[in-house]
Amino acid sequence: MKRNMRRLVVLMLILTLAFTSSIAYAGEAKEVKAPKYIFYFIGDGLGLSQRQVGELFLQEASNDKSKKLMMNTLPVTGLKTTYSSNTLVTDSAAAGTALATGHKTDNGVISKTPDGKDLKTILELAEEKGYATGLVSTTRITHATPASFASHNVNRDNENEIAVDFLDSGVEFFAGGGYRHFAPKAWEFGKSKRKDERDLLKEFAGLGYNVFAGEKDSANFLKFAPKGKEKVFAALSYSHLPYDIDRLSTLDTPSLSQLTEKGIEVLSQYEDGFFMMVEGGRIDHAAHSNDPVGTIHDVLAFDDAIKKAYKFYEKNPADTLIIVAADHETGGLGLGMGLDYFLNLEELFDVKASTEAIGYEDKKYDGNREEYFKYIEKVYSLENLTEKERAEIEKAMDLEDKGIEGSKREYGYLTKEPTAIAVAHVISNRANIYWTTFAHSGVPIPLTAVGVNAEDFSGYNDNTMIAKKLAKIIGGEL
Amino acid sequence: MKRNMRRLVVLMLILTLAFTSSIAYAGEAKEVKAPKYIFYFIGDGLGLSQRQVGELFLQEASNDKSKKLMMNTLPVTGLKTTYSSNTLVTDSAAAGTALATGHKTDNGVISKTPDGKDLKTILELAEEKGYATGLVSTTRITHATPASFASHNVNRDNENEIAVDFLDSGVEFFAGGGYRHFAPKAWEFGKSKRKDERDLLKEFAGLGYNVFAGEKDSANFLKFAPKGKEKVFAALSYSHLPYDIDRLSTLDTPSLSQLTEKGIEVLSQYEDGFFMMVEGGRIDHAAHSNDPVGTIHDVLAFDDAIKKAYKFYEKNPADTLIIVAADHETGGLGLGMGLDYFLNLEELFDVKASTEAIGYEDKKYDGNREEYFKYIEKVYSLENLTEKERAEIEKAMDLEDKGIEGSKREYGYLTKEPTAIAVAHVISNRANIYWTTFAHSGVPIPLTAVGVNAEDFSGYNDNTMIAKKLAKIIGGEL
Repeated sequence: MKRNMRRLVVLMLILTLAFTSSIAYAGEAKEVKAPKYIFYFIGDGLGLSQRQVGELFLQEASNDKSKKLMMNTLPVTGLKTTYSSNTLVTDSAAAGTALATGHKTDNGVISKTPDGKDLKTILELAEEKGYATGLVSTTRITHATPASFASHNVNRDNENEIAVDFLDSGVEFFAGGGYRHFAPKAWEFGKSKRKDERDLLKEFAGLGYNVFAGEKDSANFLKFAPKGKEKVFAALSYSHLPYDIDRLSTLDTPSLSQLTEKGIEVLSQYEDGFFMMVEGGRIDHAAHSNDPVGTIHDVLAFDDAIKKAYKFYEKNPADTLIIVAADHETGGLGLGMGLDYFLNLEELFDVKASTEAIGYEDKKYDGNREEYFKYIEKVYSLENLTEKERAEIEKAMDLEDKGIEGSKREYGYLTKEPTAIAVAHVISNRANIYWTTFAHSGVPIPLTAVGVNAEDFSGYNDNTMIAKKLAKIIGGEL
Repeated sequence: MKRNMRRLVVLMLILTLAFTSSIAYAGEAKEVKAPKYIFYFIGDGLGLSQRQVGELFLQEASNDKSKKLMMNTLPVTGLKTTYSSNTLVTDSAAAGTALATGHKTDNGVISKTPDGKDLKTILELAEEKGYATGLVSTTRITHATPASFASHNVNRDNENEIAVDFLDSGVEFFAGGGYRHFAPKAWEFGKSKRKDERDLLKEFAGLGYNVFAGEKDSANFLKFAPKGKEKVFAALSYSHLPYDIDRLSTLDTPSLSQLTEKGIEVLSQYEDGFFMMVEGGRIDHAAHSNDPVGTIHDVLAFDDAIKKAYKFYEKNPADTLIIVAADHETGGLGLGMGLDYFLNLEELFDVKASTEAIGYEDKKYDGNREEYFKYIEKVYSLENLTEKERAEIEKAMDLEDKGIEGSKREYGYLTKEPTAIAVAHVISNRANIYWTTFAHSGVPIPLTAVGVNAEDFSGYNDNTMIAKKLAKIIGGEL
């Protein structure tokens, strides 16, 4: 009896201690646990208006108010300021640097301080910590956002140099567009922008990468099944991958969702986990052109990629962190126009191409006005133009008739044809939405997150906090 | 010994149980604890751009990047969709109803379903639960947002009826503008909008309220010191209180911060706690006029009011909840314009009045162009107009010369003079910001919060969740 009593006392002591320590553990575990799998999604130009108009389009097009973008359902929400070190309106290089390194720099600079010192990136830290890493984008893979994670350059335009930096980055999975900075000068499958004699595709292959380059390799890329720890380099188009709305009508390159899925497949082979940056890179480009439908479809394509990560998270909830951020808002998109309290998103349902129309018919205004009006009726659903709408487009035509280069400058946008901008504005008007700029805006970006340590990323604070917190979570510093 | 052993066992049992139950309590306590003091701040028209431009102005004007708006430092962040039951772009009545009752309704309707049934408001529930309640706004106190908390009407414009509803609302503290719906037809201190013979000021006094009406009572209101549980009704201007930038030059009415401070003073006398709705109501009006400086100063004034609540929170952290929300964004404000990556907020530093200029000189264009140009140079710091700027203002003058009413319609805005809008646009241009609409936009609004149960209000979800969660927190349902 006495012995039983003692045993009981000992047992209860153990129970009490176990209880106490399990509580202490639960309280602290969150602080120190590093997620094994980290997804860092960046929507380029993905402001709050872009997120919302994507969701509203989904709801209106399906007539189902309950539909949500996956990214808008993640439980943790934050707001991040985006200014760069030399201006209140960041570009994608300075924003990419902030998101990748936790430090501000000047517009145009890739993961260096304004005075030229290299800044360590969260991807480089993840490599050090034993994570396999991936870089995925719908832009050229050497474009500002992916570049900021795995290269250092005083100028984002030095994409040939950025491409060389990628060789010794250790990144296990590259997928995007832009073979032009990797393919040698004389390449049988396409043009190159390289000024030197290097064949980076061959050099990547020499480093053990499975290399896929050009549209012709898209099917091979999609069929690729890793048989263990394999490395992949894929640049599947000359420049950027097409806008998703144009891709849907050509189908010669994979979607962002397919790139992401392949990345998960490849990186999952590494037993120590992975860090993957996935950029919806062309939301920004469509918004620069003030093209509402191009913007919306690229938001939806980005969301589809997030769904792949979320599926992975559902299988590995205790080991996965998903962050969905953005580098800045593009276009100053306002979900309202004039004096009226409505949106007419149904005006956007039948639009068949981006206003750049790559891969559709690629029709530019060439002086034949009636042919152009017929074209935009067919492709952009611009039937029954009002007098005002027709006048807006004809004003752009008048300018183009005087010579395209000067006309671009006069119209206020330097790289798009005035007619394309005018069409984008007429489409926007019909939907009762509008834009304040052809550039970026200084509004904070929304962040959502789910998974291990996700709550660390909430709050109204600066974009530099994301990489810094991530570094802390994986046990390092930037 | 055996007895001691038994005592030890019993003691440990008790300890174990105590531990277990305290954990259960800790786990659930958050769910059930009702904060004793609830502040529900609503910025009318306070989108993310408005919050950010307010903060940037503060930083740039003081040349101190570390300055933050109080509202942007609160730890909990959320994003709330705002659509009404009949359109994707809400008005303030439907949004106020959602924020007050947790239910969607049609634009224009005050706390009723679209088919006319009364919806219980969170303020009414708070009254039932024994909270003292307060309604504070810079608008007429019968305007859509405050109206939604303490009245029910099929039409927000029925402000005389809304005023009558307030009589039996039980609200202990009213403070705002708009005596015109309370004062009797023949009132020696100002005009009335009442169509009946009632003197609601007298009726409020009859119910035991300390009544303050008109600018002439502002000083009395500020001097009022409650000697116990007292009730206050204050409507200190004919219509809305002035924009904060205009108030600063006239000083005949209190600031929103002073109204809030008085509300805290009065409601703190009630030992069972209080619920207080404070609206920064004219951020919206300035944004409707696309007036950047009017908007910014009303954002800053709203933030000053929040600081008063935060000071209270710091003294009562375990009992206080502060929520800062908004009903919708106004103006489609884009923090960027043209092709350029900068903001020129210094262009706004020397602007001395809202573009409505109430209380400053109240100068409208009267046909004398040079006089008007001199006026806007002095008041809006519009020196050295460029040809384009001058042309924009002269275009508005040309329209006004043809007759003001038609000109408003032609210019695209129904209630402001075209010249005032043109001036607002020139000021905006100089700061490199712009607007997409004279109405509201459909972008979600940011929410921040601090205190007891604040984390319940995070997430990217709908504006109806706020009142519903609040109801649950105080132990009721809506």
